[in-house]
Amino acid sequence: MSSSTSNVIALTAGVVLALVAATGATAQSEPLSAQESDPTVMGWMQGFPPPPDKMITQPDSVYFSFPRLRWSVCHLREFLPTEEISRGLGAPVPLAYPAPHEFAELRQQIDAVTFTPQNSDEEMTWEESLYANYTDGMLILHRGEVVYERYIGCLEEDGKHAIMSMTKSFTGLLAEIMVVEGILDDTLLVSDIIPEIGDSAFATATVRQVMDMTTGVKYSENYSDPDADIWLYSAAASPLPKPEGYEGPDGYWEYLQQVQAEGNHGDEFHYKTINSDMLGWIISRVSGKAVTDLASDRLWRRMGVEQDAYQTVDGRGVPFAGGGITAGLRDLGRLGQLMLNEGELNGERLFPAEVVAKISAGGDRAKFGDGFPTFGPGSYTSQWWVLHNDHGAYAARGVHGQTIYVDPTAEMVLVRLASFPQAQNGFIDPTSLPAYQAVAEFLMSR
Amino acid sequence: MSSSTSNVIALTAGVVLALVAATGATAQSEPLSAQESDPTVMGWMQGFPPPPDKMITQPDSVYFSFPRLRWSVCHLREFLPTEEISRGLGAPVPLAYPAPHEFAELRQQIDAVTFTPQNSDEEMTWEESLYANYTDGMLILHRGEVVYERYIGCLEEDGKHAIMSMTKSFTGLLAEIMVVEGILDDTLLVSDIIPEIGDSAFATATVRQVMDMTTGVKYSENYSDPDADIWLYSAAASPLPKPEGYEGPDGYWEYLQQVQAEGNHGDEFHYKTINSDMLGWIISRVSGKAVTDLASDRLWRRMGVEQDAYQTVDGRGVPFAGGGITAGLRDLGRLGQLMLNEGELNGERLFPAEVVAKISAGGDRAKFGDGFPTFGPGSYTSQWWVLHNDHGAYAARGVHGQTIYVDPTAEMVLVRLASFPQAQNGFIDPTSLPAYQAVAEFLMSR
Repeated sequence: MSSSTSNVIALTAGVVLALVAATGATAQSEPLSAQESDPTVMGWMQGFPPPPDKMITQPDSVYFSFPRLRWSVCHLREFLPTEEISRGLGAPVPLAYPAPHEFAELRQQIDAVTFTPQNSDEEMTWEESLYANYTDGMLILHRGEVVYERYIGCLEEDGKHAIMSMTKSFTGLLAEIMVVEGILDDTLLVSDIIPEIGDSAFATATVRQVMDMTTGVKYSENYSDPDADIWLYSAAASPLPKPEGYEGPDGYWEYLQQVQAEGNHGDEFHYKTINSDMLGWIISRVSGKAVTDLASDRLWRRMGVEQDAYQTVDGRGVPFAGGGITAGLRDLGRLGQLMLNEGELNGERLFPAEVVAKISAGGDRAKFGDGFPTFGPGSYTSQWWVLHNDHGAYAARGVHGQTIYVDPTAEMVLVRLASFPQAQNGFIDPTSLPAYQAVAEFLMSR
Repeated sequence: MSSSTSNVIALTAGVVLALVAATGATAQSEPLSAQESDPTVMGWMQGFPPPPDKMITQPDSVYFSFPRLRWSVCHLREFLPTEEISRGLGAPVPLAYPAPHEFAELRQQIDAVTFTPQNSDEEMTWEESLYANYTDGMLILHRGEVVYERYIGCLEEDGKHAIMSMTKSFTGLLAEIMVVEGILDDTLLVSDIIPEIGDSAFATATVRQVMDMTTGVKYSENYSDPDADIWLYSAAASPLPKPEGYEGPDGYWEYLQQVQAEGNHGDEFHYKTINSDMLGWIISRVSGKAVTDLASDRLWRRMGVEQDAYQTVDGRGVPFAGGGITAGLRDLGRLGQLMLNEGELNGERLFPAEVVAKISAGGDRAKFGDGFPTFGPGSYTSQWWVLHNDHGAYAARGVHGQTIYVDPTAEMVLVRLASFPQAQNGFIDPTSLPAYQAVAEFLMSR
């Protein structure tokens, strides 16, 4: 295939996929494969300047649509204002690795691990799953040692990747730490902490309902509906100057002040990002610190991480607590290891073990519903997903395939960063969750 | 003075000063002092959310006007898209310090050093000069050891500060390294390297003329003239979406393609930022790397720095080679030390000594003119300012008081980061340059 023909196909597929993502419809045509859509193969942003058809620019409907998405997940700060999550100034604490020959052998063995995807009869190897899932980075720690590490697509060892809704799990972990330490009372109403929430539907929810996303708040993400809440939310959240005559909310927090009710607080789990933004506001108000500074003070400065992380902000400097973080693969592995170790890392206790005990125990399974059939009959608590499987696994998850997957029984932490063409993890779980379980079993048999 | 009265005065002074900066006129009223305008005292961006009158938001005419400027110089990435200048993943190499009691004693001694400001009869102490110049950070290295370090205003040890036009000296240093290493031929015409520069006035300039800013190019920064070039430049450079119907250049590089001639190449030094942007394009084209990656590969990853730096970008991801860098105080001290050591740092040679020999020797003094009376009869070469004084001092300089000042005779490196109300260093030199000389003499007498 000539390079120019390939480009036409790539761009067409990109437009189709963007529409698919936007409407939530099932893909009508096969998207470019992971190998075909590799950003280096596509030639995005190469050259000074790049050719016009290889340039990736605003708006987000362009830079964050497949296949451009595969480049942009590693370059969000180049499009948006951001705040740093500082690692401080000390030396990183290196992760432990096996001897090189053993590490190479482990990679071969893990690559050859087979599993059966959900709703399929055909076996797949671990290595095949990396490409099926448009993986950009994969790290597996077993008993605190790196047993597998791969960089594909836009990600490199010293690069960073958007973690999307795994950001929520940062926000939730910080909140749970504050709850366990007695700094935040999760039985309080939102209005007790933030009086100016006014008559927003959030006012009468408890902090715990916000943490577990069991609030009864209206927030529709139906992209085909011009009146869907997501449009006003996006307008509020954009750091760009508001359009002439715009009279809507400015920033995440003004948006939260006008949220309408839908259903009753406490009845059911509904996965709605505005809960995470509400939680970010709550922990900032209570602690007197931005979520970026909280994450830096409580986690990043104390974990021996290698890289600063960063978080996108709205036009008022408020970090996006529901999805704005970008971080390095190994540093996310350190966070997973900190969870597996129940709050200890590098010989230091960062928070009480009870924090992890509460998260890993999960939320109210009866309220989880059946909205996530590929994830299974799990639960969601403190902004973490709990599988309630035999291994007691739990996870941070973000669209387009991001995960930190903690398997306490296998003593395994797995981090996947990815740029799957479609946002919904329902497309990615079938070739991911059974793969994680298979690798966990392989590692337990070592 | 009550807090609310103080606020009113602060805001009024801010508006006045913004106008002064914009028109280039002399201040009509006394601005807030350094102590009064300290961003913590002012209360900028404190609270979740901050009170409306303490919020700092877009556009740059707001966030980058005094006194808000004093907060924003430490927070540029929160307003603008940026690219990282990566330090890599290794451990920082700590700077050397004297024993604590000696360090404390040195601070007392240096604070008490006196000097006579330009055009003044009244002596001033070193410590007074810090406030006179709205200093945010001051670092002095003597014989490779930190002898003085202060953080004031918005800057902290682990924070970063906009370095404004000191960015040009990064660009120029990288270019000079490439020239000395034979990668870049500074006798070539711009059009030899970048054919699509077209009939821009830059086309017929040599690379060396661009490096030394002796090009004959039209670029006026008269803010009171609505037809001044700066307005089109700003419109091109803005990362925000272009206004409806905008047909001008998009980004730094398209701007450069339409620059008109003014005077003859090689005749005289004219300090015009577009030369630095042109040089950034040249070294990116020749090296195949963005200036951020060049700075990372050639400097930041090899200097043992403590923090990543970053650089603002235009709407096409091109870093602002004329002024976009933000970095940490001590890391800039390392760069100064690398220059003083003629290309060696921490026992490693990063570039040939000839690079520093060429820069410190200066440019053609006959072409310097008398446009910088407070700086003196110096010269400008490879985007560095050379004083041609008894000590052979040379400097990187940026508006609002930024400097890396290298004094080879005194074996002294000094870094000042500041947020002086007015942009022009002509206001700051009188209480800075004689102070640097006095401290150099004190250190030589130790």
